[in-house]
Amino acid sequence: MSIREAAISGNLTPLFKACGRKEGIKPTELMARVAQGVVAIPKNRHHDFKRIMAIGKGVSTKINANIGASKDHSNLEQELEKLCVAIKAGTDTIMDLSMGCDVDEARRVILAHCPVPLGTVPIYQAVSETVEGQKGNIYDLTIDHLFGTIEKQAQNGVDFMTIHCGITRQTLERLNKHERIMGVVSRGGSFILEWMNRNNKENPLYERFDDLLAILKEHEVTLSLGDGFRPGCLADATDRGQVEELLQLGELTQRAWDAGVQVIIEGPGHMPMNQIAANIMLEKQLCHGAPFYVLGPLVTDIAPGYDHITGAIGGAIAAAAGADYLCYVTPAEHLKLPNVNDVREGVIAAKIAAHAADIAKGLPGAMDRDNAMAHCRSNLDWKGQIEQSLDPERARAFRDEGGTYTGSTCSMCGPYCAIKVFKRSRVKQPMDQNT
Amino acid sequence: MSIREAAISGNLTPLFKACGRKEGIKPTELMARVAQGVVAIPKNRHHDFKRIMAIGKGVSTKINANIGASKDHSNLEQELEKLCVAIKAGTDTIMDLSMGCDVDEARRVILAHCPVPLGTVPIYQAVSETVEGQKGNIYDLTIDHLFGTIEKQAQNGVDFMTIHCGITRQTLERLNKHERIMGVVSRGGSFILEWMNRNNKENPLYERFDDLLAILKEHEVTLSLGDGFRPGCLADATDRGQVEELLQLGELTQRAWDAGVQVIIEGPGHMPMNQIAANIMLEKQLCHGAPFYVLGPLVTDIAPGYDHITGAIGGAIAAAAGADYLCYVTPAEHLKLPNVNDVREGVIAAKIAAHAADIAKGLPGAMDRDNAMAHCRSNLDWKGQIEQSLDPERARAFRDEGGTYTGSTCSMCGPYCAIKVFKRSRVKQPMDQNT
Repeated sequence: MSIREAAISGNLTPLFKACGRKEGIKPTELMARVAQGVVAIPKNRHHDFKRIMAIGKGVSTKINANIGASKDHSNLEQELEKLCVAIKAGTDTIMDLSMGCDVDEARRVILAHCPVPLGTVPIYQAVSETVEGQKGNIYDLTIDHLFGTIEKQAQNGVDFMTIHCGITRQTLERLNKHERIMGVVSRGGSFILEWMNRNNKENPLYERFDDLLAILKEHEVTLSLGDGFRPGCLADATDRGQVEELLQLGELTQRAWDAGVQVIIEGPGHMPMNQIAANIMLEKQLCHGAPFYVLGPLVTDIAPGYDHITGAIGGAIAAAAGADYLCYVTPAEHLKLPNVNDVREGVIAAKIAAHAADIAKGLPGAMDRDNAMAHCRSNLDWKGQIEQSLDPERARAFRDEGGTYTGSTCSMCGPYCAIKVFKRSRVKQPMDQNT
Repeated sequence: MSIREAAISGNLTPLFKACGRKEGIKPTELMARVAQGVVAIPKNRHHDFKRIMAIGKGVSTKINANIGASKDHSNLEQELEKLCVAIKAGTDTIMDLSMGCDVDEARRVILAHCPVPLGTVPIYQAVSETVEGQKGNIYDLTIDHLFGTIEKQAQNGVDFMTIHCGITRQTLERLNKHERIMGVVSRGGSFILEWMNRNNKENPLYERFDDLLAILKEHEVTLSLGDGFRPGCLADATDRGQVEELLQLGELTQRAWDAGVQVIIEGPGHMPMNQIAANIMLEKQLCHGAPFYVLGPLVTDIAPGYDHITGAIGGAIAAAAGADYLCYVTPAEHLKLPNVNDVREGVIAAKIAAHAADIAKGLPGAMDRDNAMAHCRSNLDWKGQIEQSLDPERARAFRDEGGTYTGSTCSMCGPYCAIKVFKRSRVKQPMDQNT
């Protein structure tokens, strides 16, 4: 029985209990949402890990960090370091996007060290093996190889997979009717497109969707329906190609649910701020409330080197409007492979966005830590302030950098601390103010 | 004749022409908005500087960077370096918040090197001189000293001044009726409060508001009405004290306008995302559409070390909802005095927020540079991408860090570049894909 089937049949498994406890909601309520499809719990039946959690309606906004080795950067130790840094910084899931190297080995090592759900994009491995291993072209990828890779990864314990099933001849036709500046910027999407065009065939992930669902169901893999036509720049946002794919994803969601498979929908991308809320509503409406997993969105195209910030702005707005799961964007986006420091910055920025949105959504208890921080600030309790910080190490380092002020104030205001002056102003007796 | 009086009388001065040209709107239209009060042009009649600009309705969102020496950090060269970095990163105005050092000298040097409008908080200097120079207490500050400082700074050429006129016995009474976690976190606000409480008098900046307006009018200083009761944590946001002060500021706005003085209203602070748009509407409504200058807002309290990001989220939402002017927040906020690097990070983050909001607001041409970037990306034109970047140096450094990929792709995807694959997929003839 799959997680979804258990939820539908009202079988209150330990999984629902654990996730409910973690979110502070009744396990039966959580189970009901899984049955409805508005909450997903990515957990492969072959993967045991510590931090089991739920994504979707009424639970805290989750974040994901991408790592992965590549042909020219195949140092697995470095990827493990990124994994540790991302986990420590508070990511809820990890995606292994390895390509061009020994992908099996990379995944094996990452899975062994991963205390959170692990996601992959199986076509990366299949294409990588076709090109690197067999010296072929992307379009030489065979359907058997693709499905074999999905099955192998499912057996290995991958908890959720990005699969681009929504690109069809019909989606493509719609995309081709108008001109985009950026075309297709999803790597998996571009592979599918080239395969379809060169082989003049329908997308096998769409055509053989039931076979795909059977594999995912057997191993309990959550299907993350990829957005191959997500906009790659603001100008391409919310266009016909993007919306057509979303229509397809909505139909596929229903089929996956009917087959007992949990679903997450992937979304943009690059998008002006004022289009974000409408896009979330559209996804919720067309995909029957399935959890929405957005990449950013990046609210401007002109800030390479700072895209964790543009992504945090878009992510916060998206999550406050109902997005459930934010894929981090690192400062390295558009420029280079992220290093360990970029990974940390990316996770913290996404965490800020998710947390700010949980407060805005009125999630019970979301503001508790903010209030605790405010009390520490009011009491000039620096130890407490550092403990309540999202990144205590950074906070401590900055505070220490202030130099001379190791007492109760900081180097920003020195003796002219508003908090001290305010408190003193409420005392009727004159006091020496330089205390 | 002041700028506001010129606008009201329909005297189309070179100033309106220059600001109109800069924003791509008709000078007569800009002048009409200055007459209405919904646009302000901070420009002291004794200060000549290059980058004259307008703040308010229908013009691009502006940003401010705070610098300033202090008792223990009185290195003026370092402040000048911060000034240069902030200007280069794209700040529209500078505020000199020097305190505890030779404030006259700091301002003189900064003014001499400042190509943009300069703002100050005159009470900082007056209190500083009372405490440091006369070994007195904050409440020993005399009204003459305070008004004398304002007049001196106005004569020196300060373009806009933060003055906390909205704190009155009535505001204070309302604040005292309920408990805040953080009390008052505005430094200027706390000075006024202590002065009022210890001297048992009304706020002289309120009581003698007409005298204040006469000084500002004479030297053409824009009045930035300070928000002494701005919330210092999410829990204190949009409370009675804050709203009562805003009511006062609305009334004072009308009086300043009647006296021919331009006005900007200062605002929060710390605030949950979902309260921001309502706060902007409230300011616009209660202050007759006067330009709104917000500090952040910070959308969570728990991210010290990353408050430029929490501020960018809040600032983008605020500006998209109608805020006109964003005060930067640096990563150092709440922890230490910002260094040169913190200043740059703060300016860029605020710039991203302002730009993203201008796109969301549909400001004509706001997306041109984004579209240019998108075309460069689509063409894998790296030189162009770096040129279109908000921070070309950072973009170039990150790109170079990528190492081996100095060709047309980057180290993120290497040979599996979606843009290349997509373009290739549209060509009917098979090609070698490793080109």
